[in-house]
Amino acid sequence: MSFSAADHGFMAQALRMAEGGRCITTPNPSVGCVLVRDGRLIGQGHTQIAGGPHAEVMALRDAVARGETPAGATAYVTLEPCAHYGRTPPCAKGLIEAGVVRVVAALVDPHTLVAGKGLAMLREAGVAAEVGLMATEARESLKGFLSRIERHRPWLRLKLAASLDGKTALANGESQWITGPAARADVQRLRARSCAMLTGSGTVLKDDPLLTVRELDGLVWGGRQPLRVVLDSRAQLPVSARMLTAPGKTLVITADAPSKHADALREAGAEVVALPDGAGRVDLAATLALLGQRGMNEVTVESGGRLNGAWLQSGLVDELVLYQAPVLLGSAAAHMADFSLARLADKLAPRLVDSRQVGADMRYTLRFD
Amino acid sequence: MSFSAADHGFMAQALRMAEGGRCITTPNPSVGCVLVRDGRLIGQGHTQIAGGPHAEVMALRDAVARGETPAGATAYVTLEPCAHYGRTPPCAKGLIEAGVVRVVAALVDPHTLVAGKGLAMLREAGVAAEVGLMATEARESLKGFLSRIERHRPWLRLKLAASLDGKTALANGESQWITGPAARADVQRLRARSCAMLTGSGTVLKDDPLLTVRELDGLVWGGRQPLRVVLDSRAQLPVSARMLTAPGKTLVITADAPSKHADALREAGAEVVALPDGAGRVDLAATLALLGQRGMNEVTVESGGRLNGAWLQSGLVDELVLYQAPVLLGSAAAHMADFSLARLADKLAPRLVDSRQVGADMRYTLRFD
Repeated sequence: MSFSAADHGFMAQALRMAEGGRCITTPNPSVGCVLVRDGRLIGQGHTQIAGGPHAEVMALRDAVARGETPAGATAYVTLEPCAHYGRTPPCAKGLIEAGVVRVVAALVDPHTLVAGKGLAMLREAGVAAEVGLMATEARESLKGFLSRIERHRPWLRLKLAASLDGKTALANGESQWITGPAARADVQRLRARSCAMLTGSGTVLKDDPLLTVRELDGLVWGGRQPLRVVLDSRAQLPVSARMLTAPGKTLVITADAPSKHADALREAGAEVVALPDGAGRVDLAATLALLGQRGMNEVTVESGGRLNGAWLQSGLVDELVLYQAPVLLGSAAAHMADFSLARLADKLAPRLVDSRQVGADMRYTLRFD
Repeated sequence: MSFSAADHGFMAQALRMAEGGRCITTPNPSVGCVLVRDGRLIGQGHTQIAGGPHAEVMALRDAVARGETPAGATAYVTLEPCAHYGRTPPCAKGLIEAGVVRVVAALVDPHTLVAGKGLAMLREAGVAAEVGLMATEARESLKGFLSRIERHRPWLRLKLAASLDGKTALANGESQWITGPAARADVQRLRARSCAMLTGSGTVLKDDPLLTVRELDGLVWGGRQPLRVVLDSRAQLPVSARMLTAPGKTLVITADAPSKHADALREAGAEVVALPDGAGRVDLAATLALLGQRGMNEVTVESGGRLNGAWLQSGLVDELVLYQAPVLLGSAAAHMADFSLARLADKLAPRLVDSRQVGADMRYTLRFD
């Protein structure tokens, strides 16, 4: 299959459209669709909140609203059109009925309900259906959904904020924001795109965070609050934690059998699930498997040094987002991730995919892959 | 005084010229000079090795070599022309004799032998002498020399190489280069421009470094080796240290009175000076004062966590150059700078002046000012 420069340009636009649904479509993937006839863009759209129309329907509606007719058009979609009746009718059918003559998809949808059936439905109807254009970019765009479907666990992001010497707070416990307002606003964007935010009960005891998304200029998030997940190995999460009454839901994962502590948390509004690892701690892999079953595509950890270190050593982290403030806190201060290596050869060496200044701070994005 | 856009352009070129002498002129400042007649550059030059011609003489020679005559020209110099007979005749006199009619200097030379006398000599001869054009840029270019003359101590740079979590080696002592070849080549450039390299005897015991400049593409350094300075509070520097027989000289600073250890080091080729601080350690401020007296303009520290921490807490560091490898070594590993803060408000918050990727690593430049 070979694609033209114009094909690439329209698929790039479909990928840009997909960003519009980034924070609102969970558990569905946010897909982008662009309709083109005679080399001219006649309609575009992205997936709406779950239960709402998919990208293809939005693009068809957009074309009609512009006074254009989709008959004879090519549709560029970042993921294979669906072929099944879910909460909406099959998009492949919609495209056929609209008279679209060619469909270019970036990726086959790995979901068992689709998995090539959408492309097959199109071809049976005589539509030229091609796949694979800008697949790498589409995999990046859809990494959370693809992780959940293919690996049965969410894409896991670990967010860290530290000094240049890797510290987060003084040894005496004194802490405050060490990164600036621009970095903190950037974290809001990470939260808004996350299906769940994960922390430890130690962090709740210390900082009592809400882990909610706040209003932010330019952020389209539809008021959706990510699920809050608290790992509570030592049954110490207070029922007075502010997050328990904040907008959105809280899921507490414990390491023990049903207990009075769990009952009290339930009464305070939390869901409580026990996932012991047999060594007195919460099973991290089982936690991710559960979150995958619950439809979580992207999960972001915002926690303290102990849990950060445990995740890093688990090998389950996909991405590290590190905000670095241009300050030094000294060797006695609290470290951003507590773990130790037996050999230098075991050092964690993620791939640096992005580094940029965010306000007065630096932001590194690194991938374990 | 107001300067034209053309004036700025020619002074910028003089500043670029000054870089040509960056690694070779110590203890003299590397100055740049550009000669312009009828809006056209007719000659340029920079200071040569100490005892050799200054920038003005080089520019005048360059004009002659191009078949140009400097009579009637304007000279742009990054520092006031000298007015005294040192190892070379006064540059102000040379410019007057060549018939230069206007001299634009970025800065008055604060050296007591000059200090306005060069400009006065020019004016007495009827030359229009102006000062202050791009003074900020010239102060940056000449910061080592200016620090020594104005503050009676060198400009002090602390070079650090660490992981993203601020670590340099494992707790078990296992260490190796954690930054890549591009970062290490960049360090060679820092060494080449430094008048002295400073380390601690602990680092010598552990790594036995040479601290010499090695051949490097594009580096004009004339084979000059920076003075090596070793702080040896605990009289532990081995006489077998490789640096004692490497090209260049080694100065050992001890914290005790004359001793057999000092005698042995002297026999091995080092100069030994005692600068005790009264608490069993080497006096850091006295060390810098001594290096200033010795004509050192820029000094770079490449040491271990203990001495790095001591310098950072001394308040004597002007610049921090931090190379960060995209790896994590964990909380148990050796920290890049050992110090502790009583209050978060005391955090070291240098000004970030540059951040860029160097090979696979990041390089931060920060200033304490």
